[in-house]
This record gives sequence, C-alpha cells and structure tokens, in this order.
Amino acid sequence: MSTKMIERPAIDLDAEARRIAGAVDSIFAQLLEPPGDPRDRLFAAMRHAAIGGGKKLRPLLAVAASRLFGIDEDRAIRVGTAIEAIHVYSLIHDDLPAMDNDDLRRGKPTVHKAYDEATAILAGDCFHDLAFEILSDPVTCPEPSARAELVLELASASGLSGMGGGQMLDLAAEGETLDLAAITRLQQLKTGALIEYAVESACILARLPADSRTPYRGYARNIGLAFQIADDLIDHSGDAQTAGKKVGKDASAGKATFVSLLGEERARLQASMLVDQAIEHLASHGEEADLLRAIAHFVTERDR
Amino acid sequence: MSTKMIERPAIDLDAEARRIAGAVDSIFAQLLEPPGDPRDRLFAAMRHAAIGGGKKLRPLLAVAASRLFGIDEDRAIRVGTAIEAIHVYSLIHDDLPAMDNDDLRRGKPTVHKAYDEATAILAGDCFHDLAFEILSDPVTCPEPSARAELVLELASASGLSGMGGGQMLDLAAEGETLDLAAITRLQQLKTGALIEYAVESACILARLPADSRTPYRGYARNIGLAFQIADDLIDHSGDAQTAGKKVGKDASAGKATFVSLLGEERARLQASMLVDQAIEHLASHGEEADLLRAIAHFVTERDR
Repeated sequence: MSTKMIERPAIDLDAEARRIAGAVDSIFAQLLEPPGDPRDRLFAAMRHAAIGGGKKLRPLLAVAASRLFGIDEDRAIRVGTAIEAIHVYSLIHDDLPAMDNDDLRRGKPTVHKAYDEATAILAGDCFHDLAFEILSDPVTCPEPSARAELVLELASASGLSGMGGGQMLDLAAEGETLDLAAITRLQQLKTGALIEYAVESACILARLPADSRTPYRGYARNIGLAFQIADDLIDHSGDAQTAGKKVGKDASAGKATFVSLLGEERARLQASMLVDQAIEHLASHGEEADLLRAIAHFVTERDR
Repeated sequence: MSTKMIERPAIDLDAEARRIAGAVDSIFAQLLEPPGDPRDRLFAAMRHAAIGGGKKLRPLLAVAASRLFGIDEDRAIRVGTAIEAIHVYSLIHDDLPAMDNDDLRRGKPTVHKAYDEATAILAGDCFHDLAFEILSDPVTCPEPSARAELVLELASASGLSGMGGGQMLDLAAEGETLDLAAITRLQQLKTGALIEYAVESACILARLPADSRTPYRGYARNIGLAFQIADDLIDHSGDAQTAGKKVGKDASAGKATFVSLLGEERARLQASMLVDQAIEHLASHGEEADLLRAIAHFVTERDR
C-alpha cells in the first residue's frame, strides 16, 4: 500500500447525500403543494421533475462548502434548493424536442413525455422563478446584502455568461469539431458555472471577501471539469440503467467530447488529476472540509 | 360640455413613452452587445425580440409611478428594463409552436420563426436571468434591502402565483367555458401581476411601508384589468396591422373573453369605469401623478 495514497475522509457520503436530498425534496414538496385549481397539472409536472430523483449534487456541494464557515445548515439547504431549481429547469428545457429531444431523465419519462410540451416549457419557467423567490426570501438568509448577492451571482451563473450561454455554444457546435480548449470553455459555462456557484454561495452566506474566495473557486472549477469528463465517460461506456438517461448520444451525434479528444485512458487520468488538485485547494482546512473532499472523489467514481 | 368630464392632464404621453422606450432599448443594446463567439446568434435573437418594438408599457408605468415619490428616473428605467425582460421572455415562450404557435409579434416574425425553436427557448430563458441580474445589481439601486425585495416581488409576480400560473390557467381553459370570475382571475395572474409589479416597484424603491401601498395597488389592478379588456376588444374588432400580431384568435379558438362574456358595449363601459376608478386612487396626488393618469386613459384607447 502506497504511503502517497490520499487518505479517504471517514465520512459516509451516501448517507449525507441521501439526507440532504431528502431535505431538498421536502422543501420542494412544501413549495409545490397543489393549489387545488387548474394549475394543479403544472404543479404535478414540477413535482415529477424535481422530487425523488437525481443526485442533488449542487445542494450537496452548497451544504458541504457551508461547513467550512460554520454556516447554519438550514440556510445552505435552502440555497441548495434554489440551485437545484435552476438545474431542474435547465434539464426540462434541454430535454425538449427542439433541444436534445430526450425521453428519459433520472430513470423516468421527461416532463414533455409524461405531460406535454407546453406544460414542460412552463414548468421550467416556473422553476426559474422559484429559484430567485427562494434566494430573495428573508427565511433563507436574514441579511439583505447577502440575499442580493446570492441572486446576482446565480443570475449570472445561469444566464448568458453561464449556463444559458454554454447551452448556446453546445447548440452551435452541432456539425462542428471542437478542440479541447473550446470543449473546456463550453462545459465551463454549461455545467461548470452552476457547480461553481454552489460552492460560491457558501462564501456569500459567510460574507467572505472576494479575494479570500480563490481556493474555493479553484476547488469548484476543478471538480466541475472532472464531473464533466466523468459524464462523458458514462456517455461513452456506461449503460442507460446506471445513467438514468440515454447514453452514447454524443458519439451518435458526432459530437466532440473529452473522451473523443483525449481517449478513455487519458480522460480518466485527467479527471483523477483534477480531483487531486481540487482537494489540494482545501489544504488549509481540517475535517470541516471532509465532505467536500469526499464529493471530489465521488464525481469521478459515480460511473463505476 | 359636461362639467363632470375628467380633465385630461396636459402631458405629451406619446413623447414620454417614446423617450422611455428609447432609454430601455439603449440598456438592452448595451447588455446584449454580441460577445463575438458562437453565442452571437442568441444575442441577435434577443435583440430582435426586445429592441425597437412594443409599447414598453411596463417600464413606462414603473417610471410614472416613481415620479410620485421623487425617485431618480435612471433607477426606475433600469427596474422597468428588468420588467420588460420578463415580459419579453414570456412573449417568446408563449409564441412557441407548443404554446400559441404565433408567427407575428410586434409586427415582426416571432423569434422561433426568425431564428429557430431551440434559440427561442434559450432566448426566453436568458431574458429571465437578465431581469434578475439587473434588479440585483447595485447600479440599479444602492440599498441591498430594496434590491432583495425587488427580486422577491418580481419572482412572485412572474412565477406560479403570477404570470406562469396564469399561463397554465389559460392552457387548461382550452375547450372549457370560463365565467367572468374565472376569466378575471386568469387575466389577473397572466397579465395583471406584472403590471401591478411595475407600479409596486416604485413603492419598493421609495421604501414605502406595505400598508401605504394600497392606493397604488388599486390603481395598478384597475388598469391591468382595463388593459386586458382593451386587448380583448382589439382581438375582437381590430386588425393585425394595428395589433402587430394575429387577431381574432380567441374567437376562432372558442375561448371566452371579456368581450364574448359581456358583449362589446358593456366591455367598453367596464374598461372605462376601471380607468375612472384607477384615477380616483391617485386623488391625493397633484401633477406628479399626471403621467399615471395619462397612462390610465391610454390603456383603453390604444385600439382606436
């Protein structure tokens, strides 16, 4: 046994992830209580999309990062729920026939399949509002300046200079052959920005000055990229059962991915290096960073 | 000449509306400067949808209401731009084939016609973020508590308990025959909530306590409803040239409207009474309310 092997934190990641996912589901269930009028179908579609599915990685990251600064977990879970609302909205819209045209998501029919396209568009739109409603609610955080900053940074991570812009780069890439720099940039916007925001949200709740946030941004950027490489590996070699969605899409669409550009072995090595780098950013922290460390390992191992 | 006739304020509404619409267009032009990468198509689609078209009624209302409290006009224009961003996102998504399937909007091809469906979905989504980005930006308003409240109330006016919920009521109403109470409720959510928010935003910028906002909410609720009745009258009797969109849709879809339920004459009378009531809510104000009074008259007269 090598002495250089990074010691695994003694943390039950599965149990923590289940507990936090359950807390997020409870908040969604409460916010999406059907009003008992013709909007019920929309509420049902939103519950179908958000509750009881998915890894809830972003809320988990928000909670894990909040531990670094001793932030009340309930606040971090509410912020995490807002981030998950944005993530869910993006999945619903990305799955639409005019976008990726997917029938399966999180092991269930996509919203436009289980309901209809109009309801799916609207469900995504209403998750979008719900996210900002949660963040700007004094229940989430009593300090108005933190609420306003949480909103500003989420709108930025989600919009033109973040996820939305990344989705456009992805649409524009059809039929093009992107190089490694272009793929990295695309993924940094499309999935990285929201993952980075999950970690940043804890820095905002902690009122950390901008210049003290560098290591946490570094951690988040590294695991965001590692996560995407792992996603490409699942798409390349995984099966739909494990992924909970259609796989092999990128290859059949002729899309460049980290795996098509680097090859499987180098892609795995790259992801593993990114995880090590992510963990190095946490060197100044003790066991309060163990959950973040465990998540870093998880992002590349979830396909095994 | 009747002495009871309400005196018209000596205000050039057209000139004011053009000036404010121009200011909103300038902010959009600045925020939607193409980045010079494959996202340019998305930016172009957003400029197509937002700039140089529409009455910009909601920004006009935000500015007019801000005059009651002596608020810096630049702030009200930025808040109005955020509201317009939400309005534009809702138009883009409502026009989609899965929703109302409209080809013409503001006298131009709809976004999914001029570009494509995926770009239209994404353009709507990015306007949605842009609205919250503008509101939470310290440039819009230096007080964090006002920024957070602006966001909270807009998310609420735009989401499940506002515009989004109203759109679902509208979708669910297909094939149903709604009565006057149901139509009023539907329209109050679908179009009223955002119009009310435009007026409320000035109360928020002025840090007006909630219990002092009643007359302004009354004004906004009355003109919101009058606006919708006028819209139904345009759809009933107007022509596409004037409306800048397809007309006669409701009748051909068998949808109940204020006109189908009340008849044309009573609908006109009702709208006119609502305008009078709206103006009565401003009785405690002098000429600083003249722009709001002029708008109240305008909403029922734009089809003539």
